[in-house]
Amino acid sequence: MFTAMKKETPPPRTIGLITDFGLSDPYVGQMRAVLARKAPGCLVVDISHDVAPFNVAQAAFFLAASYEHFPADAVILAVVDPGVGTDRAIVGLEVDGRMLIAPDNGLLALAQKNAWAASIRAFDLSAAMDAPNRVSHTFHGRDVLAPLAAWLALGGKPGELGREIDPETLVSLPWSHPDIRPGRACGHVLHIDRFGNCVLNLEAGSLGVPTGLRLTVPAGGGLTYARTYGDMPEGGPGLLEGSQGFLELAVNQRSAAKQFGLSMGDAIELAWEA
Amino acid sequence: MFTAMKKETPPPRTIGLITDFGLSDPYVGQMRAVLARKAPGCLVVDISHDVAPFNVAQAAFFLAASYEHFPADAVILAVVDPGVGTDRAIVGLEVDGRMLIAPDNGLLALAQKNAWAASIRAFDLSAAMDAPNRVSHTFHGRDVLAPLAAWLALGGKPGELGREIDPETLVSLPWSHPDIRPGRACGHVLHIDRFGNCVLNLEAGSLGVPTGLRLTVPAGGGLTYARTYGDMPEGGPGLLEGSQGFLELAVNQRSAAKQFGLSMGDAIELAWEA
Amino acid sequence: MFTAMKKETPPPRTIGLITDFGLSDPYVGQMRAVLARKAPGCLVVDISHDVAPFNVAQAAFFLAASYEHFPADAVILAVVDPGVGTDRAIVGLEVDGRMLIAPDNGLLALAQKNAWAASIRAFDLSAAMDAPNRVSHTFHGRDVLAPLAAWLALGGKPGELGREIDPETLVSLPWSHPDIRPGRACGHVLHIDRFGNCVLNLEAGSLGVPTGLRLTVPAGGGLTYARTYGDMPEGGPGLLEGSQGFLELAVNQRSAAKQFGLSMGDAIELAWEA
Repeated sequence: MFTAMKKETPPPRTIGLITDFGLSDPYVGQMRAVLARKAPGCLVVDISHDVAPFNVAQAAFFLAASYEHFPADAVILAVVDPGVGTDRAIVGLEVDGRMLIAPDNGLLALAQKNAWAASIRAFDLSAAMDAPNRVSHTFHGRDVLAPLAAWLALGGKPGELGREIDPETLVSLPWSHPDIRPGRACGHVLHIDRFGNCVLNLEAGSLGVPTGLRLTVPAGGGLTYARTYGDMPEGGPGLLEGSQGFLELAVNQRSAAKQFGLSMGDAIELAWEA
Repeated sequence: MFTAMKKETPPPRTIGLITDFGLSDPYVGQMRAVLARKAPGCLVVDISHDVAPFNVAQAAFFLAASYEHFPADAVILAVVDPGVGTDRAIVGLEVDGRMLIAPDNGLLALAQKNAWAASIRAFDLSAAMDAPNRVSHTFHGRDVLAPLAAWLALGGKPGELGREIDPETLVSLPWSHPDIRPGRACGHVLHIDRFGNCVLNLEAGSLGVPTGLRLTVPAGGGLTYARTYGDMPEGGPGLLEGSQGFLELAVNQRSAAKQFGLSMGDAIELAWEA
Repeated sequence: MFTAMKKETPPPRTIGLITDFGLSDPYVGQMRAVLARKAPGCLVVDISHDVAPFNVAQAAFFLAASYEHFPADAVILAVVDPGVGTDRAIVGLEVDGRMLIAPDNGLLALAQKNAWAASIRAFDLSAAMDAPNRVSHTFHGRDVLAPLAAWLALGGKPGELGREIDPETLVSLPWSHPDIRPGRACGHVLHIDRFGNCVLNLEAGSLGVPTGLRLTVPAGGGLTYARTYGDMPEGGPGLLEGSQGFLELAVNQRSAAKQFGLSMGDAIELAWEA
């Protein structure tokens, strides 16, 4: 509690959460209960718990798009963990003071590519598996990763738990390296939002400001390159810089996913005048 | 942080949130991350993020039904913003010490009509658009309105940011003025809740205690006027004073929406013995 | 607020919440607003608000599976209340320092059976109905139970509000006493989670480690008895100890609910070599 903190203790850090657990089951509540017990005084912020089950790429996008908005010393935990119970590693990525932790399965890949970071360090934190007294075999989010996040949020040093590793050795994500050439880009749909906007694995600005832009896959058709919905003709399709740091296929006041028949994970191809 | 506050600083105010962003996308999490960064120590309470996309009337109802339950100095932010990117104003309504902020599109209209308020003041806070360094063109909830809410929650005075305006000049909502005459009332369905109750834009008590009550549109039929579900015959329809400050069409242990075939926004008409 | 607390005041306790209100309506937000007003400084943790409407058994499972993860002095409020407006009692169960409160309709039955508790005391807290000035007839979660939780979380003593009662007199739940005999167990599906796992009203370990295990109702078929998903053949069905303290029917990387055609509340029967 705040009143119990000594002056030398660092102030409690904010903890962010991303999972594929949904909010209907009691799983996220149990993780938050553990955080309340082990990291009293730390604010917990849900980013999303509605990642499609086992969809690592979507969660990696949520993380990459969100971590920079957190306080400069936040701890952010991402749990999409098809390998729970196997010997997959647990890793931490320290990006300009913020600490991102996750199973080592590609969840950190898009955040790691971040071009603006001045400092990126990685740690193997698998030793967290050894600490808890009672670990369930199926719910490491609650029994291993939440206690780890709590420990880091209260000032634990990752280097004291595990060894520093080369960030390049972290498990990568196939889609974290889109194919961009002059006049042509191939990518994938990372996420479709509530409004039907299709977020691509192409960073905002990575195509410059293309002219004569067309979507060639899945269906031919011209696209307006736009900074805001207002720049697009009503009902007309566009490629939008968006607010998430990645390019989005969008249709003004309609669902781009419906209009183009796109689902998460689908491949797309763009062409323009090189 | 609490420990960093000087004694003269006012205590952090609770911040309430209403949006149409849903909880699946990372948008609400990013707004909360900004609030954690800019208003540390302030409690954030979600009212609902499941307003139907762009449904200003439903969000206005959520706000009017909820703000009085908050601490007396709370700041409540409503973001349903089809006009984002246009030059719509940002406004604040101070109701008995609580500060409600929103784009000026009708979101404040039902709270403004509140008959119990001793003091109502309005402010044009559009100057908040000028402050942030990096504003996305599509997500003012995160980049403009959350920082504004944080600033107010930490003690910022609305009169120092923008000029006071006449509350009557705020954009109104067509449905905020239902048509009530002796023996007849025409209204609309503001919201259908999880249990199928249909909340009308008719304030609780505005019809008195009518006898011989009938729903004449969409379908003829008698209604029991009831204070509680137990006052209604099982499976029988009623007009309920409810808990939200507005009259509700309800059926004991069943869905009134299904029974009457009503959707949000539908017109209804009631008749009784005048 | 923290700054206003005297040193003698006990530190604010964490408050957990379980309801069947969903998160789309403003109901949970209004309960949290009341808690922010009446119990400032208390952390509130949502366990789940997506209990199926009026499903007391599912909520009782959520509570039993979750309360032990909370801080040792937490207050946990469960509101699934088909009898709201009738004279059903409001009760509290103090389990090893944690206080669980609910309408007396079976919500506490599974937590009460907890074999590990060193101390269990029960209280009739119906007097909370008398306290509030303005109580709606339909929303006691906000107007009665949230203020009661706030009062307890700030240090209120249950024995000062109501009399201590025999825990055995609390309303029970039919399914809290499954039928387990040598070589045969009959149970029910308490909950189906996001991944299709079917949680049974059979405590983990209550069958020992059975060999020759079969599901005889609804459909014949062998089951692997497993501690983790990895112990089950891919696509093969098993009975899993799980992470929630109860046995679960599960299929590795598939939905057990679909495979067995099970819904919440369905009866099942297991047989094994006695």
